[in-house]
Amino acid sequence: MANRSRVGIVGFTGYSGAELLRILKGHPSVDPVLLEHRDVSDLELPFGERTPRVPFQTQALRDEGVDAVFLATSLEVSVAAVPELLDAGLPCVDLSAAFRLRAISDYRRWYKVEHPCPGRLLDAAYGLPEFFREMVKISTLVANPGCYPTAANLSLRPLMMEAILERSVGVVCDAKSGVSGAGRKPSLKTHFCEVTENLSAYSVLLHRHVPEILYTTDLDEHELSFTAQLLPVHRGILETIYVRTDNPMEWAQVRAIYDKYYRGEPFVRLYPQGRLPDLRGIQGTNFCDIGFQVDPATRRVVIVAAIDNLVKGAAGQAVQNLNLMLGYPETAGLLDDGGTQEGAAR
Amino acid sequence: MANRSRVGIVGFTGYSGAELLRILKGHPSVDPVLLEHRDVSDLELPFGERTPRVPFQTQALRDEGVDAVFLATSLEVSVAAVPELLDAGLPCVDLSAAFRLRAISDYRRWYKVEHPCPGRLLDAAYGLPEFFREMVKISTLVANPGCYPTAANLSLRPLMMEAILERSVGVVCDAKSGVSGAGRKPSLKTHFCEVTENLSAYSVLLHRHVPEILYTTDLDEHELSFTAQLLPVHRGILETIYVRTDNPMEWAQVRAIYDKYYRGEPFVRLYPQGRLPDLRGIQGTNFCDIGFQVDPATRRVVIVAAIDNLVKGAAGQAVQNLNLMLGYPETAGLLDDGGTQEGAAR
Amino acid sequence: MANRSRVGIVGFTGYSGAELLRILKGHPSVDPVLLEHRDVSDLELPFGERTPRVPFQTQALRDEGVDAVFLATSLEVSVAAVPELLDAGLPCVDLSAAFRLRAISDYRRWYKVEHPCPGRLLDAAYGLPEFFREMVKISTLVANPGCYPTAANLSLRPLMMEAILERSVGVVCDAKSGVSGAGRKPSLKTHFCEVTENLSAYSVLLHRHVPEILYTTDLDEHELSFTAQLLPVHRGILETIYVRTDNPMEWAQVRAIYDKYYRGEPFVRLYPQGRLPDLRGIQGTNFCDIGFQVDPATRRVVIVAAIDNLVKGAAGQAVQNLNLMLGYPETAGLLDDGGTQEGAAR
Amino acid sequence: MANRSRVGIVGFTGYSGAELLRILKGHPSVDPVLLEHRDVSDLELPFGERTPRVPFQTQALRDEGVDAVFLATSLEVSVAAVPELLDAGLPCVDLSAAFRLRAISDYRRWYKVEHPCPGRLLDAAYGLPEFFREMVKISTLVANPGCYPTAANLSLRPLMMEAILERSVGVVCDAKSGVSGAGRKPSLKTHFCEVTENLSAYSVLLHRHVPEILYTTDLDEHELSFTAQLLPVHRGILETIYVRTDNPMEWAQVRAIYDKYYRGEPFVRLYPQGRLPDLRGIQGTNFCDIGFQVDPATRRVVIVAAIDNLVKGAAGQAVQNLNLMLGYPETAGLLDDGGTQEGAAR
Repeated sequence: MANRSRVGIVGFTGYSGAELLRILKGHPSVDPVLLEHRDVSDLELPFGERTPRVPFQTQALRDEGVDAVFLATSLEVSVAAVPELLDAGLPCVDLSAAFRLRAISDYRRWYKVEHPCPGRLLDAAYGLPEFFREMVKISTLVANPGCYPTAANLSLRPLMMEAILERSVGVVCDAKSGVSGAGRKPSLKTHFCEVTENLSAYSVLLHRHVPEILYTTDLDEHELSFTAQLLPVHRGILETIYVRTDNPMEWAQVRAIYDKYYRGEPFVRLYPQGRLPDLRGIQGTNFCDIGFQVDPATRRVVIVAAIDNLVKGAAGQAVQNLNLMLGYPETAGLLDDGGTQEGAAR
Repeated sequence: MANRSRVGIVGFTGYSGAELLRILKGHPSVDPVLLEHRDVSDLELPFGERTPRVPFQTQALRDEGVDAVFLATSLEVSVAAVPELLDAGLPCVDLSAAFRLRAISDYRRWYKVEHPCPGRLLDAAYGLPEFFREMVKISTLVANPGCYPTAANLSLRPLMMEAILERSVGVVCDAKSGVSGAGRKPSLKTHFCEVTENLSAYSVLLHRHVPEILYTTDLDEHELSFTAQLLPVHRGILETIYVRTDNPMEWAQVRAIYDKYYRGEPFVRLYPQGRLPDLRGIQGTNFCDIGFQVDPATRRVVIVAAIDNLVKGAAGQAVQNLNLMLGYPETAGLLDDGGTQEGAAR
Repeated sequence: MANRSRVGIVGFTGYSGAELLRILKGHPSVDPVLLEHRDVSDLELPFGERTPRVPFQTQALRDEGVDAVFLATSLEVSVAAVPELLDAGLPCVDLSAAFRLRAISDYRRWYKVEHPCPGRLLDAAYGLPEFFREMVKISTLVANPGCYPTAANLSLRPLMMEAILERSVGVVCDAKSGVSGAGRKPSLKTHFCEVTENLSAYSVLLHRHVPEILYTTDLDEHELSFTAQLLPVHRGILETIYVRTDNPMEWAQVRAIYDKYYRGEPFVRLYPQGRLPDLRGIQGTNFCDIGFQVDPATRRVVIVAAIDNLVKGAAGQAVQNLNLMLGYPETAGLLDDGGTQEGAAR
Repeated sequence: MANRSRVGIVGFTGYSGAELLRILKGHPSVDPVLLEHRDVSDLELPFGERTPRVPFQTQALRDEGVDAVFLATSLEVSVAAVPELLDAGLPCVDLSAAFRLRAISDYRRWYKVEHPCPGRLLDAAYGLPEFFREMVKISTLVANPGCYPTAANLSLRPLMMEAILERSVGVVCDAKSGVSGAGRKPSLKTHFCEVTENLSAYSVLLHRHVPEILYTTDLDEHELSFTAQLLPVHRGILETIYVRTDNPMEWAQVRAIYDKYYRGEPFVRLYPQGRLPDLRGIQGTNFCDIGFQVDPATRRVVIVAAIDNLVKGAAGQAVQNLNLMLGYPETAGLLDDGGTQEGAAR
């Protein structure tokens, strides 16, 4: 195991960055350093702050003895900063979309940008440890997955790898997210009065997270119908996924497939027959909960997956990746909340 | 037009019954009468009440000069009460499921009951006026549709009647409802602390409302995948419906189909291209808002429909049906809120 | 009664302005005209809009035949626009604070502005019709009260006018408001994630609405302790007010005082003994609900008052004032929701 | 320090009991044992449960090696069970009100019960460690304080002990609580549709928690005006408390008093001048946050205090008391969430 590390956080005033800070404070081997890259005047803390702060500059990171960096920033900031950090020998976990895709054409199409350092795209590991753990371990740049793709990929990849789906009928992924997924920057879309007691769909068939799901599941674009919806909820994502299998399958057969991929995985929990995940079960945790209903006669499987968009969908998975990169136990700092395994009276 | 009428409400302490009362108080030609059929002690109103109350007994209804009856009750109460009311010459709008299905085998399967008066099932009109208006006008018993089926049927029936769907790939209807759809009776499921900041799926593939959708859309059971989800919201249903067309269609072509069926319909509003309904737009109104996104290349259409489960999904549609049965303008009492057409600053 | 009128709305993209539009659409004698005074690009309505729009310029108002103007704007906009409107002969109901206070020193202290037209301050009627109805009728400029003062003044002024309070112990007004009171402009304070599941106090003892309460109740500043709190609620204000009487009073004696002032008032509802108002009872209505608990032995009275901050606290009261100014029935457009008097199953 | 202990939880299906379980799972020295005292069929956990369960019977507790017991139950259950547990040598932390008051007359008046074992009332320590730490350490029965009194007493007792208040003008405590304070048993009062977007006051001047505040603050009943209000929030209490001092005091002088009592206290956090606590800052933690605004000229102090009703207001304080009784560090199991001291981007 590695020794104690100091890890910087860029973007700590956002929701994902703040969650990184919260997690690292309970991490047994990592000490956070706040990296100031623009105005942080809105972060007035009521109590004496003890986390060190330094400017987000390579020399300052060296002086401070920072060992690695989390970028909880926009694609634009990450694209500009990551090459210099890597050149300075600092491993990066990037929570933006800047290095998640492989093809510059996909950046053109989905993000409307000309990627300035396409050579780095192939160096980046896609930080979904359940499937790319060994790559993460040896990488210095990890592209932390998007929140929607994390739940979708964990739900679909086992079924795709076993080639049991009738792909011609397509896969429907109906996703719902809490508002923190839209970030902390104020907008009319996130105004309390616009969100409370409301539900709205957006980016139907056109969400930027679609290519990430295609990459990981090996689905073709026309095979995946993805819709995002904004819930009147602070944090949490629930995805309801509709597939059809090639051959009739019983519930236990589907479960056996998930067991094959997730037995021993610390952060994937499979629900028993007849029960389905909800947001309450995963809020504040790094778990991805998966349950499903099967109708063998019609070969339909409906999967329900839930994650906390700020934890397994962002900061928690980022720490999971950092642990792998730095040689700490994968769960370090991520299982301290004793209540999560049992859920108590829910 | 008929003269002024007195119309009874059974179940006025529930959410649908209370909504009936609210609507009728603004109705230009109908006066409500509250019918007490069990303990109503929890209904202590802060201000002097002026709505008359009588026991729910045929003779009392005659004495009171009641002209028709709304049953906002359970299936069990409606099944027992409706035959006597009809025999007494009182037209009924039944908000329960008691007379929505045709086959007693469907009641056995979906509701686990042996229907006591199957002969009445064929007499009942299914009260979705946009499609069965003429039957409603001549019926003395109207089975008011369920909340989920109202939105699903208005979304799907035009496409099914035009036979443009590739039925073999199936239809996915992912439905989300506010908590009032679960009724006013307290339960752990509706406890504030279990619902707030949460989202949960239930009755996946097995919801009792499925047969209503099958009846009206002419889909086969294996062609429809229906999931219900409980939103942390008081009132409102949003359904996201995924279909594939047989041939490539542009947005305008799909719109033309909806226009064909809904032009002139007072309570169906079609959203323009690029915009989709949300709950805010329909809360408190009798509208069903429908929008959709089309991907001609892959023949996919994603439809988003929204209704207020207590209005178009229950009490409002019931008044719409009553208006047709008694000869009043179909919109009487249902369009008084001037703001609904424009929505103002949303 | 006056004939049909056309009334302009400045600031119709804000929450109060939108509420004005909603109310006027149900008004039997007034037609709204939207006055564009700056970018309104965020107001894309899903359905065809029928309300006319004209630039907010005196000549355009004349050309359009506008008879009066609502200003649902900031103090700065109102201060600049009102004099010209009045000079052009257009009666104004100003929903901002621009003309609510009498002394320019109060504007300096509470609003940090040098009032540019102090001469107009004395011309303005304070638009709390329950107490200043006759002045409103003869005024061409009505300063519509603030939301917090409306509930506080209606609760306290009768007790002050009867001189029954022990003023030396002070009056505590603990006020809680829904988020729409903070306006539609996005800010971190109104971000859904900051508000949901939260409650926070602000402007303790220093709220800008304090002088309005002092003016109307005749309390001295040191006698009133006012705290505002932000509720995770869209609309509604509840104020809990603590006073002590000079002499022991029974509940019925306090009630008799309120009855003296509010008997016949269409928009003040007094709760019976043992019951208290809540937000649900007044949302969407122009009512101010008042209830109270009395402890004669210790001479304490605790009053609970509730209004909808966007209706009786803003747009509804503005229409009430307009009705008085133009000679319409005071309740025109404000009592159409039949459910409000009874509340049905709450 | 004591060795490892096994501690039973009665009432683990309720919200406080579930919170006890959650906390104990993160406790370094205590292992929970679930004590079944009635139907627990509603507690179906999705994942394999590892916490042992035994019947709530003295012999079973002995067999299981239970060292102490939490009673998260009703007054009735606690009153019946505690004497036998104490006789069996088992220390008890009782979260009900059964042993909080001293006088049987107070039980008659406030709880409408004839206390069956008044002799035990004097044996019980009132478990507010900040003031009664030494008594808790030597007691075998600790009466865990009510949620409202915890915040009120921590706010008021320092000011009362220093005798700086002008008692004749009275103290107003306006309290607001999340719904979990009403318990997990379903009722119309806690139905989501009744609570969301609402706020209601209850038990004005008559709340059962009043005598606990009087005991600890030494206020007379007529000096304290206490109102409870139900927030549309899962968990958290905010109390706004209005007092007047005998002599003019600056903010720093009031702060000095709080510092005198709370310096070194691990669970009381004092806000800096110009800032006030909110619910977000304390949810999920055992902290009581206190802030205040001072107006020296008028001798008014407005205090805002916040706690999580399930933690510092129930389960957390109970564990704090247990730690003291069993000789563990007072903060054991209660400070593991690293994020709480800093709060990060709030």
